[in-house]
Amino acid sequence: MKRGKISNNVIRRLPRYLQQMEDLAKNGVDHISSKALGRQMGLTPSQIRQDFSCYGEFGQQGWGYSVPYLREQISAILGMKRGYRLILVGIGNLGHALLKNFGFERYGFTLAGAFDVNPELVGTELSGLRVAHIDTLEEFLKMEAVDIAVLTVPGDAADATAKQLARCGVRAIWNFTNTELAVSRKGTLVENIHFSDSLLSLSYFLTESLDAT
Amino acid sequence: MKRGKISNNVIRRLPRYLQQMEDLAKNGVDHISSKALGRQMGLTPSQIRQDFSCYGEFGQQGWGYSVPYLREQISAILGMKRGYRLILVGIGNLGHALLKNFGFERYGFTLAGAFDVNPELVGTELSGLRVAHIDTLEEFLKMEAVDIAVLTVPGDAADATAKQLARCGVRAIWNFTNTELAVSRKGTLVENIHFSDSLLSLSYFLTESLDAT
Repeated sequence: MKRGKISNNVIRRLPRYLQQMEDLAKNGVDHISSKALGRQMGLTPSQIRQDFSCYGEFGQQGWGYSVPYLREQISAILGMKRGYRLILVGIGNLGHALLKNFGFERYGFTLAGAFDVNPELVGTELSGLRVAHIDTLEEFLKMEAVDIAVLTVPGDAADATAKQLARCGVRAIWNFTNTELAVSRKGTLVENIHFSDSLLSLSYFLTESLDAT
Repeated sequence: MKRGKISNNVIRRLPRYLQQMEDLAKNGVDHISSKALGRQMGLTPSQIRQDFSCYGEFGQQGWGYSVPYLREQISAILGMKRGYRLILVGIGNLGHALLKNFGFERYGFTLAGAFDVNPELVGTELSGLRVAHIDTLEEFLKMEAVDIAVLTVPGDAADATAKQLARCGVRAIWNFTNTELAVSRKGTLVENIHFSDSLLSLSYFLTESLDAT
Protein backbone atom coordinates (compact mmCIF):
# COMPACT_ATOMS: atom_id res chain seq x y z
CA MET A 1 0.00 0.00 0.00
CA LYS A 2 1.22 3.49 -0.84
CA ARG A 3 1.41 5.49 2.34
CA GLY A 4 0.83 9.17 2.75
CA LYS A 5 2.97 11.28 5.05
CA ILE A 6 2.66 9.72 8.48
CA SER A 7 3.24 11.85 11.54
CA ASN A 8 6.15 11.21 13.80
CA ASN A 9 3.82 10.75 16.77
CA VAL A 10 2.08 7.85 15.03
CA ILE A 11 5.40 6.23 14.14
CA ARG A 12 6.66 6.58 17.69
CA ARG A 13 3.55 4.85 19.01
CA LEU A 14 4.10 1.73 16.88
CA PRO A 15 6.72 0.16 19.18
CA ARG A 16 4.36 0.81 22.09
CA TYR A 17 1.55 -1.02 20.30
CA LEU A 18 3.92 -3.90 19.60
CA GLN A 19 4.92 -4.10 23.26
CA GLN A 20 1.26 -4.05 24.28
CA MET A 21 0.45 -6.87 21.85
CA GLU A 22 3.30 -8.91 23.30
CA ASP A 23 2.07 -8.33 26.82
CA LEU A 24 -1.48 -9.27 25.81
CA ALA A 25 -0.26 -12.43 24.02
CA LYS A 26 1.76 -13.37 27.09
CA ASN A 27 -1.41 -13.07 29.16
CA GLY A 28 -3.34 -15.28 26.75
CA VAL A 29 -5.45 -12.45 25.29
CA ASP A 30 -6.39 -13.28 21.72
CA HIS A 31 -8.32 -10.23 20.63
CA ILE A 32 -9.07 -6.79 21.94
CA SER A 33 -11.38 -3.88 21.16
CA SER A 34 -9.98 -0.45 20.38
CA LYS A 35 -11.79 0.75 23.51
CA ALA A 36 -10.02 -1.71 25.81
CA LEU A 37 -6.69 -1.15 24.08
CA GLY A 38 -7.13 2.59 24.43
CA ARG A 39 -7.86 2.27 28.14
CA GLN A 40 -4.71 0.19 28.63
CA MET A 41 -2.52 2.58 26.70
CA GLY A 42 -3.99 5.94 27.66
CA LEU A 43 -5.28 6.67 24.15
CA THR A 44 -8.78 7.20 22.78
CA PRO A 45 -10.29 4.44 20.62
CA SER A 46 -10.53 6.82 17.68
CA GLN A 47 -6.85 7.72 18.06
CA ILE A 48 -5.99 4.05 17.81
CA ARG A 49 -8.20 3.50 14.76
CA GLN A 50 -6.64 6.55 13.12
CA ASP A 51 -3.11 5.38 13.87
CA PHE A 52 -3.70 1.98 12.30
CA SER A 53 -5.60 3.40 9.35
CA CYS A 54 -2.29 4.92 8.18
CA TYR A 55 -1.17 1.38 7.38
CA GLY A 56 -4.36 -0.46 6.41
CA GLU A 57 -7.34 -1.98 8.13
CA PHE A 58 -6.32 -4.29 10.91
CA GLY A 59 -9.55 -4.62 12.86
CA GLN A 60 -13.07 -5.87 12.33
CA GLN A 61 -16.08 -3.75 13.23
CA GLY A 62 -17.65 -5.03 16.42
CA TRP A 63 -14.99 -7.64 17.08
CA GLY A 64 -11.85 -5.60 17.48
CA TYR A 65 -8.27 -6.58 16.74
CA SER A 66 -6.70 -10.01 16.63
CA VAL A 67 -3.68 -9.77 18.92
CA PRO A 68 -1.42 -12.16 16.94
CA TYR A 69 -2.41 -10.59 13.61
CA LEU A 70 -1.80 -7.05 14.83
CA ARG A 71 1.53 -8.11 16.29
CA GLU A 72 2.57 -9.60 12.93
CA GLN A 73 1.47 -6.52 11.03
CA ILE A 74 3.24 -4.09 13.34
CA SER A 75 6.40 -6.21 13.37
CA ALA A 76 6.43 -6.06 9.58
CA ILE A 77 5.84 -2.31 9.49
CA LEU A 78 8.70 -1.80 11.95
CA GLY A 79 11.06 -3.75 9.68
CA MET A 80 11.46 -6.64 12.09
CA LYS A 81 10.97 -9.13 9.24
CA ARG A 82 13.81 -7.71 7.16
CA GLY A 83 16.56 -9.56 8.98
CA TYR A 84 18.60 -6.41 9.59
CA ARG A 85 22.20 -7.01 10.57
CA LEU A 86 23.70 -4.86 13.29
CA ILE A 87 27.16 -4.19 14.61
CA LEU A 88 28.13 -2.72 17.96
CA VAL A 89 30.92 -0.15 17.85
CA GLY A 90 32.37 0.61 21.29
CA ILE A 91 32.18 -2.05 23.99
CA GLY A 92 32.44 -0.02 27.18
CA ASN A 93 29.96 -0.37 30.02
CA LEU A 94 27.04 0.66 27.87
CA GLY A 95 28.08 -1.63 25.01
CA HIS A 96 28.37 -4.49 27.49
CA ALA A 97 24.94 -3.73 28.89
CA LEU A 98 23.37 -3.77 25.43
CA LEU A 99 25.18 -6.95 24.39
CA LYS A 100 24.21 -8.80 27.53
CA ASN A 101 20.71 -7.57 28.20
CA PHE A 102 19.08 -6.00 25.20
CA GLY A 103 18.14 -9.11 23.24
CA PHE A 104 18.52 -7.88 19.67
CA GLU A 105 17.21 -11.22 18.31
CA ARG A 106 13.85 -10.66 19.98
CA TYR A 107 13.24 -7.93 17.42
CA GLY A 108 14.47 -9.93 14.45
CA PHE A 109 17.93 -8.34 14.40
CA THR A 110 21.20 -10.22 14.01
CA LEU A 111 24.32 -9.00 15.78
CA ALA A 112 27.02 -9.45 13.18
CA GLY A 113 30.01 -7.88 14.89
CA ALA A 114 31.41 -6.01 17.89
CA PHE A 115 34.33 -3.58 17.75
CA ASP A 116 36.50 -1.81 20.28
CA VAL A 117 40.00 -0.39 20.67
CA ASN A 118 40.71 -1.88 24.11
CA PRO A 119 43.41 -4.58 23.70
CA GLU A 120 42.05 -6.41 26.74
CA LEU A 121 38.68 -6.78 25.05
CA VAL A 122 39.73 -7.51 21.47
CA GLY A 123 39.66 -11.25 20.84
CA THR A 124 37.41 -12.04 23.81
CA GLU A 125 33.94 -13.47 23.34
CA LEU A 126 30.87 -11.62 24.59
CA SER A 127 27.37 -13.02 24.20
CA GLY A 128 28.63 -15.28 21.42
CA LEU A 129 30.42 -12.50 19.51
CA ARG A 130 34.17 -12.18 19.24
CA VAL A 131 35.21 -8.55 19.78
CA ALA A 132 37.32 -7.27 16.88
CA HIS A 133 39.69 -4.30 16.81
CA ILE A 134 38.11 -1.18 15.44
CA ASP A 135 40.99 -0.95 12.93
CA THR A 136 39.41 -3.94 11.18
CA LEU A 137 36.01 -2.24 10.86
CA GLU A 138 36.37 -1.02 7.28
CA GLU A 139 37.63 -4.36 6.06
CA PHE A 140 34.72 -6.05 7.83
CA LEU A 141 32.22 -3.71 6.20
CA LYS A 142 33.63 -4.51 2.75
CA MET A 143 32.92 -8.20 3.32
CA GLU A 144 29.70 -8.08 5.32
CA ALA A 145 26.36 -6.40 4.80
CA VAL A 146 25.53 -4.27 7.82
CA ASP A 147 22.31 -2.29 8.08
CA ILE A 148 22.55 -0.60 11.46
CA ALA A 149 25.51 0.38 13.64
CA VAL A 150 25.01 0.81 17.36
CA LEU A 151 27.36 3.63 18.28
CA THR A 152 28.58 3.44 21.87
CA VAL A 153 32.07 4.90 21.49
CA PRO A 154 33.23 7.85 23.65
CA GLY A 155 31.84 11.21 22.56
CA ASP A 156 35.12 12.48 21.17
CA ALA A 157 35.32 9.54 18.77
CA ALA A 158 31.66 9.69 17.75
CA ASP A 159 31.72 11.91 14.70
CA ALA A 160 34.77 10.34 13.05
CA THR A 161 33.43 6.82 13.62
CA ALA A 162 30.02 7.79 12.23
CA LYS A 163 31.65 9.21 9.11
CA GLN A 164 33.63 6.03 8.63
CA LEU A 165 30.47 3.93 9.00
CA ALA A 166 28.57 6.09 6.52
CA ARG A 167 31.44 5.99 4.02
CA CYS A 168 31.41 2.20 4.22
CA GLY A 169 27.71 2.04 3.41
CA VAL A 170 26.02 1.76 6.81
CA ARG A 171 22.73 3.60 6.37
CA ALA A 172 21.49 3.79 9.94
CA ILE A 173 23.16 4.63 13.25
CA TRP A 174 21.69 4.10 16.69
CA ASN A 175 23.56 6.83 18.52
CA PHE A 176 24.26 6.67 22.26
CA THR A 177 27.12 9.17 22.22
CA ASN A 178 25.14 12.28 23.16
CA THR A 179 26.79 13.97 20.16
CA GLU A 180 24.99 15.39 17.16
CA LEU A 181 26.41 13.41 14.27
CA ALA A 182 27.25 15.40 11.15
CA VAL A 183 26.36 12.43 8.92
CA SER A 184 22.71 12.88 9.85
CA ARG A 185 22.69 15.94 7.60
CA LYS A 186 24.03 13.87 4.72
CA GLY A 187 21.40 11.20 4.52
CA THR A 188 22.52 8.69 7.14
CA LEU A 189 19.58 7.83 9.39
CA VAL A 190 20.47 8.64 12.98
CA GLU A 191 18.36 7.78 15.98
CA ASN A 192 19.65 9.41 19.14
CA ILE A 193 19.24 8.11 22.65
CA HIS A 194 19.47 11.29 24.69
CA PHE A 195 19.60 10.18 28.30
CA SER A 196 19.71 13.76 29.51
CA ASP A 197 16.49 14.74 27.71
CA SER A 198 14.69 11.97 29.49
CA LEU A 199 16.04 12.80 32.96
CA LEU A 200 15.38 16.51 32.47
CA SER A 201 11.78 15.78 31.47
CA LEU A 202 11.39 13.81 34.69
CA SER A 203 12.93 16.70 36.61
CA TYR A 204 10.42 19.03 34.94
CA PHE A 205 7.45 16.88 35.93
CA LEU A 206 8.78 16.53 39.48
CA THR A 207 9.14 20.30 39.74
CA GLU A 208 5.64 20.81 38.42
CA SER A 209 4.26 18.29 40.89
CA LEU A 210 6.14 19.79 43.86
CA ASP A 211 4.97 23.30 42.93
CA ALA A 212 1.36 22.11 42.73
CA THR A 213 1.32 20.77 46.28
CA MET B 1 3.36 32.83 36.52
CA LYS B 2 0.37 30.52 36.52
CA ARG B 3 0.74 28.11 33.64
CA GLY B 4 -2.04 26.62 31.56
CA LYS B 5 -1.92 23.03 30.39
CA ILE B 6 1.29 22.66 28.41
CA SER B 7 1.52 19.98 25.75
CA ASN B 8 3.90 17.11 26.14
CA ASN B 9 5.59 18.00 22.86
CA VAL B 10 6.53 21.44 24.18
CA ILE B 11 7.87 19.95 27.42
CA ARG B 12 9.93 17.39 25.52
CA ARG B 13 11.51 20.15 23.43
CA LEU B 14 12.80 22.05 26.49
CA PRO B 15 15.86 19.83 27.04
CA ARG B 16 16.66 20.22 23.31
CA TYR B 17 16.52 24.02 23.65
CA LEU B 18 18.79 23.82 26.67
CA GLN B 19 21.30 21.68 24.76
CA GLN B 20 21.20 24.12 21.87
CA MET B 21 21.83 27.08 24.20
CA GLU B 22 24.80 25.22 25.67
CA ASP B 23 26.22 24.53 22.23
CA LEU B 24 25.72 28.17 21.22
CA ALA B 25 27.36 29.42 24.42
CA LYS B 26 30.28 27.06 23.83
CA ASN B 27 30.70 28.60 20.38
CA GLY B 28 30.65 32.11 21.81
CA VAL B 29 27.20 33.02 20.48
CA ASP B 30 25.57 35.56 22.76
CA HIS B 31 22.18 36.05 21.19
CA ILE B 32 20.10 34.47 18.46
CA SER B 33 16.92 35.20 16.52
CA SER B 34 14.02 32.76 16.54
CA LYS B 35 14.59 32.39 12.80
CA ALA B 36 18.21 31.28 13.19
CA LEU B 37 17.35 29.07 16.16
CA GLY B 38 14.54 27.50 14.18
CA ARG B 39 16.86 26.75 11.27
CA GLN B 40 19.34 25.08 13.60
CA MET B 41 16.70 22.98 15.32
CA GLY B 42 14.39 22.15 12.45
CA LEU B 43 11.50 24.19 13.89
CA THR B 44 9.63 27.23 12.58
CA PRO B 45 10.25 30.58 14.29
CA SER B 46 6.59 30.80 15.27
CA GLN B 47 6.78 27.33 16.83
CA ILE B 48 9.69 28.52 18.95
CA ARG B 49 7.91 31.70 20.01
CA GLN B 50 4.83 29.65 20.88
CA ASP B 51 6.83 27.15 22.91
CA PHE B 52 8.49 29.86 24.99
CA SER B 53 5.27 31.83 25.39
CA CYS B 54 3.99 28.97 27.58
CA TYR B 55 6.51 30.11 30.19
CA GLY B 56 6.80 33.86 29.73
CA GLU B 57 8.47 36.26 27.35
CA PHE B 58 12.12 35.46 26.88
CA GLY B 59 12.95 37.39 23.74
CA GLN B 60 12.99 40.97 22.52
CA GLN B 61 11.32 41.97 19.30
CA GLY B 62 13.92 42.55 16.60
CA TRP B 63 16.84 41.43 18.73
CA GLY B 64 16.03 37.83 19.51
CA TYR B 65 17.00 35.79 22.52
CA SER B 66 19.93 36.25 24.88
CA VAL B 67 21.64 32.85 24.96
CA PRO B 68 22.77 32.99 28.63
CA TYR B 69 19.39 34.33 29.76
CA LEU B 70 17.42 31.70 27.87
CA ARG B 71 19.72 29.01 29.23
CA GLU B 72 19.10 30.22 32.79
CA GLN B 73 15.35 30.35 32.29
CA ILE B 74 15.12 26.91 30.75
CA SER B 75 17.39 25.42 33.44
CA ALA B 76 15.03 26.82 36.06
CA ILE B 77 11.92 25.53 34.30
CA LEU B 78 13.50 22.06 34.06
CA GLY B 79 14.12 22.03 37.81
CA MET B 80 17.89 22.16 37.49
CA LYS B 81 18.07 24.85 40.20
CA ARG B 82 16.25 22.76 42.78
CA GLY B 83 19.29 20.75 43.84
CA TYR B 84 17.54 17.42 43.38
CA ARG B 85 19.24 14.49 45.06
CA LEU B 86 19.42 11.20 43.18
CA ILE B 87 20.32 7.65 44.03
CA LEU B 88 21.30 4.87 41.67
CA VAL B 89 19.73 1.49 42.39
CA GLY B 90 21.41 -1.37 40.53
CA ILE B 91 25.07 -1.03 39.56
CA GLY B 92 25.42 -3.46 36.67
CA ASN B 93 26.92 -2.44 33.33
CA LEU B 94 24.31 0.20 32.71
CA GLY B 95 24.60 1.60 36.24
CA HIS B 96 28.36 1.76 35.81
CA ALA B 97 27.99 3.55 32.48
CA LEU B 98 25.69 6.16 34.02
CA LEU B 99 27.91 6.66 37.07
CA LYS B 100 31.03 7.08 35.01
CA ASN B 101 29.83 8.98 31.98
CA PHE B 102 26.51 10.70 32.51
CA GLY B 103 27.63 13.67 34.56
CA PHE B 104 24.63 14.21 36.83
CA GLU B 105 26.22 17.36 38.30
CA ARG B 106 26.14 19.09 34.91
CA TYR B 107 22.38 19.27 35.29
CA GLY B 108 22.42 20.42 38.89
CA PHE B 109 21.77 16.98 40.35
CA THR B 110 23.61 15.45 43.29
CA LEU B 111 24.26 11.72 43.41
CA ALA B 112 23.57 10.83 47.03
CA GLY B 113 23.90 7.05 46.97
CA ALA B 114 24.44 3.89 44.95
CA PHE B 115 22.99 0.49 45.83
CA ASP B 116 23.49 -3.06 44.64
CA VAL B 117 23.26 -6.66 45.86
CA ASN B 118 26.58 -7.84 44.45
CA PRO B 119 28.96 -8.51 47.39
CA GLU B 120 31.94 -7.76 45.15
CA LEU B 121 30.61 -4.27 44.52
CA VAL B 122 29.27 -3.35 47.94
CA GLY B 123 31.82 -1.24 49.81
CA THR B 124 33.79 -0.28 46.69
CA GLU B 125 33.98 3.31 45.52
CA LEU B 126 32.71 4.36 42.11
CA SER B 127 32.94 7.94 40.88
CA GLY B 128 33.33 9.11 44.47
CA LEU B 129 30.34 7.13 45.77
CA ARG B 130 30.60 4.13 48.05
CA VAL B 131 28.25 1.37 46.86
CA ALA B 132 25.92 0.25 49.65
CA HIS B 133 23.98 -2.99 49.94
CA ILE B 134 20.42 -2.73 48.75
CA ASP B 135 19.28 -4.09 52.12
CA THR B 136 20.32 -0.74 53.61
CA LEU B 137 18.19 1.24 51.14
CA GLU B 138 15.16 1.78 53.40
CA GLU B 139 17.31 2.87 56.31
CA PHE B 140 19.14 5.27 54.01
CA LEU B 141 15.87 6.75 52.75
CA LYS B 142 14.74 7.38 56.34
CA MET B 143 17.84 9.48 56.96
CA GLU B 144 18.34 11.19 53.61
CA ALA B 145 16.11 13.20 51.35
CA VAL B 146 16.06 11.65 47.89
CA ASP B 147 14.08 13.11 45.03
CA ILE B 148 14.79 10.79 42.12
CA ALA B 149 15.84 7.15 41.96
CA VAL B 150 17.61 5.87 38.87
CA LEU B 151 16.36 2.31 38.51
CA THR B 152 18.85 0.03 36.77
CA VAL B 153 18.11 -3.25 38.52
CA PRO B 154 17.29 -6.42 36.53
CA GLY B 155 13.74 -6.51 35.14
CA ASP B 156 12.51 -9.15 37.57
CA ALA B 157 13.44 -6.95 40.55
CA ALA B 158 12.06 -3.75 39.04
CA ASP B 159 8.52 -3.66 40.35
CA ALA B 160 9.34 -4.65 43.92
CA THR B 161 12.20 -2.14 44.11
CA ALA B 162 10.01 0.61 42.71
CA LYS B 163 7.33 -0.13 45.31
CA GLN B 164 9.92 0.05 48.07
CA LEU B 165 11.22 3.38 46.77
CA ALA B 166 7.71 4.82 46.53
CA ARG B 167 6.82 3.60 50.01
CA CYS B 168 9.93 5.34 51.35
CA GLY B 169 8.91 8.65 49.82
CA VAL B 170 10.81 8.77 46.53
CA ARG B 171 8.52 10.65 44.18
CA ALA B 172 10.24 10.14 40.85
CA ILE B 173 11.84 7.12 39.18
CA TRP B 174 14.02 7.16 36.08
CA ASN B 175 13.29 3.68 34.83
CA PHE B 176 15.76 1.73 32.67
CA THR B 177 14.28 -1.69 33.41
CA ASN B 178 12.03 -2.00 30.35
CA THR B 179 9.24 -2.91 32.77
CA GLU B 180 6.02 -0.99 33.26
CA LEU B 181 6.12 -0.03 36.93
CA ALA B 182 2.87 -0.43 38.84
CA VAL B 183 3.74 2.57 41.07
CA SER B 184 3.26 4.88 38.06
CA ARG B 185 -0.49 4.34 38.44
CA LYS B 186 -0.31 5.38 42.08
CA GLY B 187 1.21 8.79 41.71
CA THR B 188 4.93 8.09 41.50
CA LEU B 189 6.39 9.92 38.53
CA VAL B 190 8.03 7.41 36.21
CA GLU B 191 10.10 8.30 33.18
CA ASN B 192 10.91 5.27 31.07
CA ILE B 193 13.93 4.85 28.86
CA HIS B 194 12.69 2.35 26.32
CA PHE B 195 15.74 1.35 24.29
CA SER B 196 13.66 -0.93 22.10
CA ASP B 197 11.24 1.84 21.08
CA SER B 198 14.14 3.87 19.85
CA LEU B 199 15.79 1.06 17.87
CA LEU B 200 12.46 0.00 16.37
CA SER B 201 11.79 3.56 15.23
CA LEU B 202 15.17 3.55 13.51
CA SER B 203 14.33 0.21 11.92
CA TYR B 204 11.05 1.72 10.71
CA PHE B 205 12.78 4.70 9.10
CA LEU B 206 15.40 2.43 7.52
CA THR B 207 12.65 0.24 6.07
CA GLU B 208 10.81 3.26 4.73
CA SER B 209 14.02 4.59 3.17
CA LEU B 210 14.94 1.22 1.59
CA ASP B 211 11.42 0.84 0.17
CA ALA B 212 11.57 4.32 -1.33
CA THR B 213 14.72 3.59 -3.34
